[in-house]
Amino acid sequence: MSLYQKIRQQSREFSQRTLDRHLRLGVTGLSGSGKTAFITSLVQQLTHGDLPAHLPFFAVVREKRYLGGQVNQQQRLSVPRFPVEQNLQHLQQQPPVWPPSTRGWSQLSLTLRYKAATGLRARLQSRSELALNIVDYPGEWLLDLPLLNMDYQQWCEFSWRLFRQPHRQAAANDFEQHLRLLNLQDGSELALQHSTEQYKALLQQYHDTPGAYLNQPGRLLVPGELAGAPMLQLFPLLPEQAGEHSALAKKLEQHYKSYCKNVIEPFYQQHFARLDRQIILVDCLSALNHGYAAMQELQQALQLILKSFHYGPSSLLTRLFKPQISKVLFAASKSDHATPEQHKALSLLLQQLLHQPLKLSHYQSAITEVMAIAAIRASTSGYVQADGLAQPCIRGETLGQKSVTYFPGEVPATIPSAEFFNQHKFEFLALQPISWAEHEPLPHVRMDHVLQFMLGDKME
Amino acid sequence: MSLYQKIRQQSREFSQRTLDRHLRLGVTGLSGSGKTAFITSLVQQLTHGDLPAHLPFFAVVREKRYLGGQVNQQQRLSVPRFPVEQNLQHLQQQPPVWPPSTRGWSQLSLTLRYKAATGLRARLQSRSELALNIVDYPGEWLLDLPLLNMDYQQWCEFSWRLFRQPHRQAAANDFEQHLRLLNLQDGSELALQHSTEQYKALLQQYHDTPGAYLNQPGRLLVPGELAGAPMLQLFPLLPEQAGEHSALAKKLEQHYKSYCKNVIEPFYQQHFARLDRQIILVDCLSALNHGYAAMQELQQALQLILKSFHYGPSSLLTRLFKPQISKVLFAASKSDHATPEQHKALSLLLQQLLHQPLKLSHYQSAITEVMAIAAIRASTSGYVQADGLAQPCIRGETLGQKSVTYFPGEVPATIPSAEFFNQHKFEFLALQPISWAEHEPLPHVRMDHVLQFMLGDKME
Repeated sequence: MSLYQKIRQQSREFSQRTLDRHLRLGVTGLSGSGKTAFITSLVQQLTHGDLPAHLPFFAVVREKRYLGGQVNQQQRLSVPRFPVEQNLQHLQQQPPVWPPSTRGWSQLSLTLRYKAATGLRARLQSRSELALNIVDYPGEWLLDLPLLNMDYQQWCEFSWRLFRQPHRQAAANDFEQHLRLLNLQDGSELALQHSTEQYKALLQQYHDTPGAYLNQPGRLLVPGELAGAPMLQLFPLLPEQAGEHSALAKKLEQHYKSYCKNVIEPFYQQHFARLDRQIILVDCLSALNHGYAAMQELQQALQLILKSFHYGPSSLLTRLFKPQISKVLFAASKSDHATPEQHKALSLLLQQLLHQPLKLSHYQSAITEVMAIAAIRASTSGYVQADGLAQPCIRGETLGQKSVTYFPGEVPATIPSAEFFNQHKFEFLALQPISWAEHEPLPHVRMDHVLQFMLGDKME
Repeated sequence: MSLYQKIRQQSREFSQRTLDRHLRLGVTGLSGSGKTAFITSLVQQLTHGDLPAHLPFFAVVREKRYLGGQVNQQQRLSVPRFPVEQNLQHLQQQPPVWPPSTRGWSQLSLTLRYKAATGLRARLQSRSELALNIVDYPGEWLLDLPLLNMDYQQWCEFSWRLFRQPHRQAAANDFEQHLRLLNLQDGSELALQHSTEQYKALLQQYHDTPGAYLNQPGRLLVPGELAGAPMLQLFPLLPEQAGEHSALAKKLEQHYKSYCKNVIEPFYQQHFARLDRQIILVDCLSALNHGYAAMQELQQALQLILKSFHYGPSSLLTRLFKPQISKVLFAASKSDHATPEQHKALSLLLQQLLHQPLKLSHYQSAITEVMAIAAIRASTSGYVQADGLAQPCIRGETLGQKSVTYFPGEVPATIPSAEFFNQHKFEFLALQPISWAEHEPLPHVRMDHVLQFMLGDKME
């Protein structure tokens, strides 16, 4: 090798190292929003879907600069791994079924190879690499953030305002009765444990209640290794009880503080602070199915979630850790459960659900985007002739394995009023994924837009 | 306050601080050995059982120097807490039932107050304190220690020798067939996961098999926050497969190493290394009930557990961490399921089960003791007249709520031979705890001896 060649090679190796990129992408969403399907699809698109016709809006693919992606087998063996292979198997069953959802956090690393389009990298390297880490965690963990800004008394007030909403009221009656009969001077282990069990039963009921999105504290139902820790003996007293400085209220205050310090703060410091970009999935169609109160609570939950991405120089988040999330995508998932011409309305609806916080954009450090997507297609769309007119429709299989062709109804572009919900019932059916054979590109709606927004600028 | 008084008080405060003691006591035992009942009783004896007639061998109580103990309410709120109050409630039910067992680790702190008997402390202080931390963890975690001394291939050989034992053979057939049909060149995620599921099913079957004590790796069935981590995709290939350097064997080797490094070593460094004393509970009577193979495996498991307490200056344990356990008690639990005159034989039997390792006592840094106990009494003992002779018997309630008065049979003082087991079947009945009213001393067998051995020298 000549000296010239040596220098050239060293210089190339040096560039390779310094120009290589890392990106940590958070994916979250409230329970039932399609997080598992989304990550499964994201990985499948990046590893097997790289055909210009399949991902037309993803520039690096369209421009034929994408060289391929693969799941990194060298991921740390002690970190929970997102089970993408197992999930894809579920889609290959006959009939195909949705992969099971998980309740904890997990990770998956991919290496993406591409040719740079322009600039220094294009001149120096024949091949560039982007290391993509996908971090999956429950959206409920973001709903714990507001607890840091409240004290125990305020949390009790917040909780009981929520429990008095129409879709929650009935379920909370028993727990309210239980609290009213409580001896507030009894701060014993047994008393705390007993009431916590009652509250857990209520939370579990809410977890299974359509439209009850906002359940705090986020770890009570899935404690993991925290099981048995006293700080998880935590429930909201009635507001008038919380202010009394009783033995019980004092204990609960301590547990509340400990939960903030030992659960919420470490999550933000260890996981959230290291993310570069974030995707939040929202299932608006289900919320519409479940009526006005569900839509109201979804809006409230989204506004609380947005707080995690609003950090001015003096905000709590900035004081707690150095956030570095530069792009946030809110994706209305399962859009293929409505007909294509309704997608515009769906994304407008999600924009309106997010509206209030977006006005506070001078606090915002991250670019925010909204789109309607389907990570894995559950329907094909087409037209039927009705009264001589072409009427849009979709075709799919219900969860009960019944083939259906139908028009699911219009999606409102704004949040309907309570009166409207009284007169009109939305019924967006839940569908199974459509058939798919291994190694084929996975059918989707707008995953190319997602990829372009999330990764496009890093692969130029 | 005069100068003299000031100096005296300062000196007293100084002594109080410097002479106060901390003791971290580990309590463990294999699944079903009575760990939960033991800790519940230990705490109850130290907080409510301090009558000389109730704990005659516990010197500090007998000498009326014990001022009382209480559960520390200021324990760290983020650490799992041993649920002593809940457990005591189970004993107060009518009819009383055993408290439920737990599968993770937990802690409980007590403050014990006493008058020192002699020495500097007796002269300087009117009252001394001992802070006692009780740490509860599954004995199965100690059974992981030998993995650090083996490589993956050796572990496969060890595991399959074990699975070929008579009480295990039949259950392992399916898994062996599964392994024989395996494509060893397939080291994919899916292949690993599928075989791990098969192995987990086998481990679960063993967990429910009487006499199958030795199940590795200890965290596979209770992964906690490790759920989904690739290192938990771990199972023993057949020995002839493990040596082949196939893609699958290589993956499993990596996972095995990661498990040793990320699970076993941290347990020893973070939990075990900080213990001062250790109690290991052994249910010998159940093992006798389940026959020769069960006794053999119990002996093997105990010998592996003993290795955690054998540390010469150059041992693996000493290199990994600085162990400081100075006393180890092996307690034959549930001794009241036999008549009192059999207790001597029971403790001799346990000594023999431990015999081989005790010969290696020149490696041993800790004082070891063996005794037969019952943490919470399940029977009262007495005599019945039979053929004009007073015959010892016990009286209790079976798990099916039947009152019984009977002679449960003799306990052999040495491990019976295989032939003996062929001709003789041991049948020590399982009994419910006897009735107990709150705040009464909890009836026991030799808990005073346990307390004296574990705490006596620290409360002189």
